[in-house]
Formats: sequence, structure tokens, C-alpha cells
Amino acid sequence: MALFGAIEAGGTKFVCAVGGGPATIAAETRITTTSPTETLAQCIAFFRAQPPLAALGVGCFGPLERRADAPNYGHVTSTPKPGWANADVVGELRRALGVPVGFDTDVNAAVLGEARWGAAQGLASAVYVTIGTGIGGGALCGGHLLHGLLHPEMGHLLVPREPDDADFEGGCPFHGADCWEGVASGPAIERRWGVRAERLAPEHPAWDLEARYISSALTTLVLVLSPERLILGGGVMQMPALLPLVRRYLQRRLAGYVQSSALGSGIDAYVVAPGLGQRSGILGALALAEAAATR
Amino acid sequence: MALFGAIEAGGTKFVCAVGGGPATIAAETRITTTSPTETLAQCIAFFRAQPPLAALGVGCFGPLERRADAPNYGHVTSTPKPGWANADVVGELRRALGVPVGFDTDVNAAVLGEARWGAAQGLASAVYVTIGTGIGGGALCGGHLLHGLLHPEMGHLLVPREPDDADFEGGCPFHGADCWEGVASGPAIERRWGVRAERLAPEHPAWDLEARYISSALTTLVLVLSPERLILGGGVMQMPALLPLVRRYLQRRLAGYVQSSALGSGIDAYVVAPGLGQRSGILGALALAEAAATR
Repeated sequence: MALFGAIEAGGTKFVCAVGGGPATIAAETRITTTSPTETLAQCIAFFRAQPPLAALGVGCFGPLERRADAPNYGHVTSTPKPGWANADVVGELRRALGVPVGFDTDVNAAVLGEARWGAAQGLASAVYVTIGTGIGGGALCGGHLLHGLLHPEMGHLLVPREPDDADFEGGCPFHGADCWEGVASGPAIERRWGVRAERLAPEHPAWDLEARYISSALTTLVLVLSPERLILGGGVMQMPALLPLVRRYLQRRLAGYVQSSALGSGIDAYVVAPGLGQRSGILGALALAEAAATR
Repeated sequence: MALFGAIEAGGTKFVCAVGGGPATIAAETRITTTSPTETLAQCIAFFRAQPPLAALGVGCFGPLERRADAPNYGHVTSTPKPGWANADVVGELRRALGVPVGFDTDVNAAVLGEARWGAAQGLASAVYVTIGTGIGGGALCGGHLLHGLLHPEMGHLLVPREPDDADFEGGCPFHGADCWEGVASGPAIERRWGVRAERLAPEHPAWDLEARYISSALTTLVLVLSPERLILGGGVMQMPALLPLVRRYLQRRLAGYVQSSALGSGIDAYVVAPGLGQRSGILGALALAEAAATR
């Protein structure tokens, strides 16, 4: 069996792994994100200590350039993260390791991982959303990861303000309270209630409000992308009471407009937690490697 | 050169044409939509009077079923239009004419037509939106028309209410004022101002409000689909002052978050009128036929 390398490249840590799939991870390490040179050198050292890889996959924080014909293909682009703007992630790894490198956003990697081994197996379309420090989403459409001008930034889509939240100033540096992340990320919850999300009791009104904002955004995602499944991950979704509330509000918002049993009696199988738990990202990077090897 | 047939199937009229492309339309007719049997019989009679076709394309009002493996593939599904719920459009045409039939939504056909011969030539991704009696959109993603659970219904995506429009009750039978169509369709404009949209002067405040709602929806479409171009058609967009206003508000809403020259200095080439004028739908149906012939 071919051995693949995977990097889940985040703003605070990089996870590196080698293996063939979820059941055959042979080695794994976590690296604190510092400068690009130093962080990537540590990744390279980890992979060099392993048996030869068939390919490497990188699911990376963004924004990034992944149009194959762009001069800066494989770079992180305009991030405010010190040192990382225009960092040539793919070039550095490919030069050092000499293997094909699959490269996409962390959330596109996650939806691919879920399609390969998790909650979206066998589907040609799905959306993976992470709701945590920020909100981001990746999409599989017609069997392919969604790209275009750049890549989706669905965490910033517009959601109507909930009437009982009219005074909240929001938490998005770009859009204030005028986007999904601005009203529903973990930091937005903390800012609104003065308590970290994980310390709010299940019966706190924060969760009902949160479910309404999430379901508004999901309504728009269903109407725009028509995915066969919605997968919700990230720290905020760890509150068990949230997912059932989100499903109920999503049905209410759609108001029967989209006629599909998936949105009716099948809602529990339509809006789901990740099948790979908190491993969608790293396993998705492994799936990116697999795809890069067979290209 | 192969001859293709095309049907733009609308709720009030069916347009039928035969030809090889925009410059070689050999015949065309308009049929008032009555019952499915009668309307389709008139279409069939029109095509039978033409030289043999290589294939037929149908861009159809929805909702419709176009998953190839569904038992009711090729049917209009849950429309309130009398007689048309569960009408087997593709089956009837294929049995009568004996040619391959390409079938998709009217707006997916339109974006395909624009990609083949109009404003999205050479692009792998684009969105076509029509803003008129209703609002609908089609999308090309990675070179393919977007489908999934069903097909996009992006006219009903959620847009935040504009503060100076807080009292408007909206015009969507499903979502009131809580969706794009509910606040920005032609009938919504007429309901709000008591005058038909085409009779409102360019300096009427209706157009500024309309531009804000449209740009809110486009902001979400950019963030979710990341298309390489946005094409805006339909009756409401006939007001020349509207398009430049929409572009300006779209830039303001995105607030520099998506870093691409297309959304900066290139905005006039990014948000555009249809390259095929009011012919995107019928020519798109011709492009569907072309694709069906080569499948």
C-alpha cells in the first residue's frame, strides 16, 4: 500500500501525519506555527525520517492561491499572520521532498476527507463547515472541490440580524456584525455574553441564538449549493444541544420551499457531525495526497 | 454542421428554436404555455417540421428532477402551476422525437449559454442571475453546471433587511421579506412603491434600495461560490442606472475581504450584463442540446 504524507496547516499549529488512511496512520506530530521557514523545516524533517512517500497533501489556512496556472500557485496569499503573507508552502515542500503535493484550503481538505472516509462517503456533493475561532466552509460539488476566482470564504456570508441581538456590535474585523462569523464564531459568543462558549450551560439563551444564526447561514448554503449533506464541525459545535436546534431552525427557515425528504424526515441524516470527529482536516490532507498521487 | 433543437420552457411561454449557434438559428417559435400535453404537442409539431435534429436541449422552469438515476428524471416536480406538477417533459419529448435530450433549469441553461457564446466564454466558473418576476440563478463550477441534492434555488437566499425598509412585508409566499426574491423581485418593487418597476424614474430611491439588496445577495454568492464572473439579467436589470450601483455596493459589502483585482479595479468586467442579451435562456438550451449530443 502506498504511503502518503499529510499536513493540516493551521495558524497556531501544523499537524503532520503519514499513512494510507484513518486506520493506518504510522506516525504523527504537532508543530507550533512560527515562521514559514522554521515551521516548514520541521515538517520536512518529520517526513524525511519516514519511509518514502508517494505524495503529500496540505490542507492550509488561507487565503491561498491554488489555481494551477497562477504564478504564485501554492502560496498563502494575504494573511495578516506575521511572515506568512506570500509564503511559498507548496514550492518549499516539493523542492525538499521531491513528491507531488496536493494543496487546498483546510476546509476543502476536510470535506474531501469526510467524502473519502467520513460522513459524506459516496456523495458527489457536500459542505463541511467549522464553527470555532473563525467560521469557514469547504464544498464538494459534482465530485470536485469547489474553486473559482479564489476559493469559498463562506464564513463571511451575510446573515440577517436576529431581532433580539440588534445591539451586538459583532466580532468580524472586516464586516462587524454583518457576516456569519461576526455574529456566530466562538469569539463572537464570548464577546456577546462575556463568557467563553464552552462555559455556557446548555440551557443558556446563547445556544438558541447561535442555532438561529447557524441555521440562517445553512439555509443560504442549501439554496445556493444544494449539497447532499451538511457537516458541522469545530469547537462551538461541541455543545451537544446545538445540532438538534440547528436542524429544527433550518427546517423552519426553508419553510418547505425545497421539497426533499432529506430536509424533512431525513434531516437528522442531512445535517450531521463530522464522521471523522476532529480528524477531518488531517485525514482530508491525506486524501489530497492520494488525489495528487493519481493525477 | 449538426442541427440542434432548443426549448426555453417558461411558466407563461415556451420558446422553441433550431440551429447550430447564435448566428445560425434556422427557425424559432413561441408557444403560450397551457397544459403539458398540449404545450409539448405544439413543441413536437414545430420540431417535426424541421430537418432532423442531432439532439434537443430544454432549459425549464422548476423545480425539476435532473438526477440521472431518479425514477422521475426529466420531470417538473412540485410546481403550483396547474397541471405541471410531475409532468414528464423529457420523456414525452424523447419518445416523440427520438433524440438525446439535455435537461436543466432555465437559469443553469442560461449560464451555460453565456459560457458557450456570451459573457462567460473561456471561464470554468460563473453565476447567471435573473431578476424579474422572480429571482433565480444558475452556476457553472469547475466547468460543470451546479447540481446536488436538487438544483440551486438561489433567489431565496437570505439577505439582511435594509434599515430604511424595515416595515416592508415582502412578497415571497414562502419567506415573506426574509429572502432575496421577497424584497427585490419586480413584484416586490411594485408592492413596496405602488408602481411597476419599469415606470420608476432612474433617480427614484427604489433603485438605490434595490442595488443594496442585490449587492447583499451577490456578496454571499461571491463568498460561497467564488465565481469568476457574475452575470445579471432579467427585467429589473433593464434599468441602466442599476448595474453601476450594484457594483459599488458589492465592493463596499465585501470590504476588501476577498483580495482579487476582479473585485477591485476589474469590477466592471466582473459584474456584467448578459453577453447574449435576452437570449441567454434559449441559446443556453441549444448549448444543452450540444452537450447531450456529445455525451
